[in-house]
Amino acid sequence: MLKEESSPLVRADVAVAEAYASVGNVGIGFDILGHCVAGAGDRAEVRLIAEREVRITAIDGVITDLPMAAADNTAGAALLSMIHGLDLPFGFELVLHKGIALGSGMGGSAASCVAAVVAANALLDEPLAREALYPFALDGEVVASGSRHGDNLGPMLLGGLVLATDKRIVRIPVPAEWYCALVHPHVVLETRRARAALAGHYALGEFVAQSANLALVLAGCYRGEAALVREGLSDVLVEPRRAPLIPGFAAVKQAALDHGAMGASISGAGPSVFGWFEDRASAEAASHDMRAAFKAAGHDSDVLVAPVDGPAARVL
Amino acid sequence: MLKEESSPLVRADVAVAEAYASVGNVGIGFDILGHCVAGAGDRAEVRLIAEREVRITAIDGVITDLPMAAADNTAGAALLSMIHGLDLPFGFELVLHKGIALGSGMGGSAASCVAAVVAANALLDEPLAREALYPFALDGEVVASGSRHGDNLGPMLLGGLVLATDKRIVRIPVPAEWYCALVHPHVVLETRRARAALAGHYALGEFVAQSANLALVLAGCYRGEAALVREGLSDVLVEPRRAPLIPGFAAVKQAALDHGAMGASISGAGPSVFGWFEDRASAEAASHDMRAAFKAAGHDSDVLVAPVDGPAARVL
Repeated sequence: MLKEESSPLVRADVAVAEAYASVGNVGIGFDILGHCVAGAGDRAEVRLIAEREVRITAIDGVITDLPMAAADNTAGAALLSMIHGLDLPFGFELVLHKGIALGSGMGGSAASCVAAVVAANALLDEPLAREALYPFALDGEVVASGSRHGDNLGPMLLGGLVLATDKRIVRIPVPAEWYCALVHPHVVLETRRARAALAGHYALGEFVAQSANLALVLAGCYRGEAALVREGLSDVLVEPRRAPLIPGFAAVKQAALDHGAMGASISGAGPSVFGWFEDRASAEAASHDMRAAFKAAGHDSDVLVAPVDGPAARVL
Repeated sequence: MLKEESSPLVRADVAVAEAYASVGNVGIGFDILGHCVAGAGDRAEVRLIAEREVRITAIDGVITDLPMAAADNTAGAALLSMIHGLDLPFGFELVLHKGIALGSGMGGSAASCVAAVVAANALLDEPLAREALYPFALDGEVVASGSRHGDNLGPMLLGGLVLATDKRIVRIPVPAEWYCALVHPHVVLETRRARAALAGHYALGEFVAQSANLALVLAGCYRGEAALVREGLSDVLVEPRRAPLIPGFAAVKQAALDHGAMGASISGAGPSVFGWFEDRASAEAASHDMRAAFKAAGHDSDVLVAPVDGPAARVL
């Protein structure tokens, strides 16, 4: 368990934490599986205040037009949940520095939640273990997405690949040499719209195929066997319903597979696309062609190439 | 990988193998997860014959009214698939000793397939690894159930808890001290009828909950953490649709949970009910009350109590 450093005698009155981007769903773990990707992140600067409230004083960075009312802001709501859940006798002032674009499918709302609660936690006399912060972060995430899912929060709190249920987060081991290429086209796809594409009925056979794939990926990660992940990392349930919302998706995915990806699919609700590779060089090479494929579909994009077993949020 | 003992010089002309009962689905892994349970099994006596055909000469034991035509018999069809798949220049004569009741949800048809192919394999000059026998066994299983699923075949071939997809079987580690109580009421529930109960549409939310449970059980097994299995071993997808077909199900399941089961659900297509326990004593104690609950619903039953990490089929 991660625990923030703290002194029982000296309580700082300001802390800054950063939470990194993440790939939610990972194709085969809709709403329950995600992993961190270093290279982009949200930062939260949190200051103790005497009043039992949350005041957001500034939001800057790649997005600025987010709600300033604490209860309507994902990070603000997470801090309010923390104040009430822990019955804290004080409150927090919050400055958010957004490094992750809105509607990118890279877990931006989750990153704000996690950065805020991790920074606030560092201000407590007895900071909690990361797992204990999860319920507060969930209360924040629901404000942004309308859904109580932790597939981005979990990896940001624990690092690496994480299974996140409504009650619990569990880290899954991943070989250190496996890399992710995450390509973010400059198109906004609202999470709510991406969720609407999933309305309707499903067949049991779709579930059986998808759960077999999920189990193969989990077993492959535990065993460190790329062959199992390669066989399982294919989203037969959600991707077919969402792919039409992402311009150029098929070509971008194919570019990843052409470079030997174990699998490639939509990151979170999209439009970002990720691929998993057995080494850094393949991920780097793929990322160029994945960008080119988005460009051919009319969109510039930016790229993160980083280990699948990415870093947890940290106090700066 | 398991490999049968063999001599390149001396080929026996008869072999006997036994495959043990299994718990298919394990609640949260519909069609893809199963584990062996020692204590009951089917035996196959296989003899080389010059003709490239399969002759079933006798079926005895707890069931005798099974098809004698090879292509219509699950074990016969598996052997035919083996002859054709391996292009063998000879055939097999088969005697089946059935130890597992038909329509019990304990993998009886799979056990006949596996016992037959494992015995036949022992007659080959160069016996194959167990994984290589899986496609032949699948070809047999489909004759019995009408569905190409390997959740019983996989554990019978490899032993223990096994993930079985349409292409592959993978053993999942399980702590040696975890026990299963498997209670078989003397009622027949035909697999095809149990499958019919699953017709219709499913909601995405059902799948998210079920896949979270599947992932918790897999992670719990890999980590040897009963708490994760306890949280995950709950079938929210299939059990609610099949439970009405099993007289006394709710009371039998509750009896298992009252004795500390990590979870309890329907074995395979039912009507047998299994529970997983952290030790043998709890499983033994539960099995008595599970039997009593079936008795209260009007049915006698018999019981197996054995490690979850049960034995693979073996050549006798």
